[in-house]
Amino acid sequence: MINQIDLKFDARGLIPAIVQDEETKDILMVAWMNAESFQLTQKTGQAHFWSRSRNELWLKGATSGNFMNIRRILVDCDADTLLILVKPAGPACHTGKQSCFYQDIEIGK
Amino acid sequence: MINQIDLKFDARGLIPAIVQDEETKDILMVAWMNAESFQLTQKTGQAHFWSRSRNELWLKGATSGNFMNIRRILVDCDADTLLILVKPAGPACHTGKQSCFYQDIEIGK
Repeated sequence: MINQIDLKFDARGLIPAIVQDEETKDILMVAWMNAESFQLTQKTGQAHFWSRSRNELWLKGATSGNFMNIRRILVDCDADTLLILVKPAGPACHTGKQSCFYQDIEIGK
Repeated sequence: MINQIDLKFDARGLIPAIVQDEETKDILMVAWMNAESFQLTQKTGQAHFWSRSRNELWLKGATSGNFMNIRRILVDCDADTLLILVKPAGPACHTGKQSCFYQDIEIGK
């Protein structure tokens, strides 16, 4: 268990965070965190992200009610990607689907 | 099932690819693809990436033997992240661990 870690934020000051349902192990979404949103997530246990399109801090669920309650936060071997395990309060995707990953791409073409 | 899709590569020409074990649903690693590595992956059914540190195309398993045999490729709602489901031939991580995500970060601090 790591308390302080030197996360490797990219040139924009961001790190990708994969959101996985702790129970089903489905991948729900991927979003980005800056240092502030990571610290808020770690402190509050609610997923906070940085919106690259709106250039603003974003509490997942603030408008939809579909909060992502954090159960675990993991970091990969080179500390440049986060994996957060959550108990979702509702669908992750803005389309209303449980997961943002609902489109299959054909293989072998 | 999508055959052709306009993937949204970032300003560097890259898209992140999350690698998930199809059977256990564990997240194994995250790496990056450029258009060429995506096309090779789609065509061959073997995960190819772009190494940002070495600036070169990289066939996962070429040196280690730990190939990632592709079972499915999914893309998220805004087409800027890939999720590839694989049957791994061996550990994903260069440390020898099954997954690159083996470090927990403390919550509530």
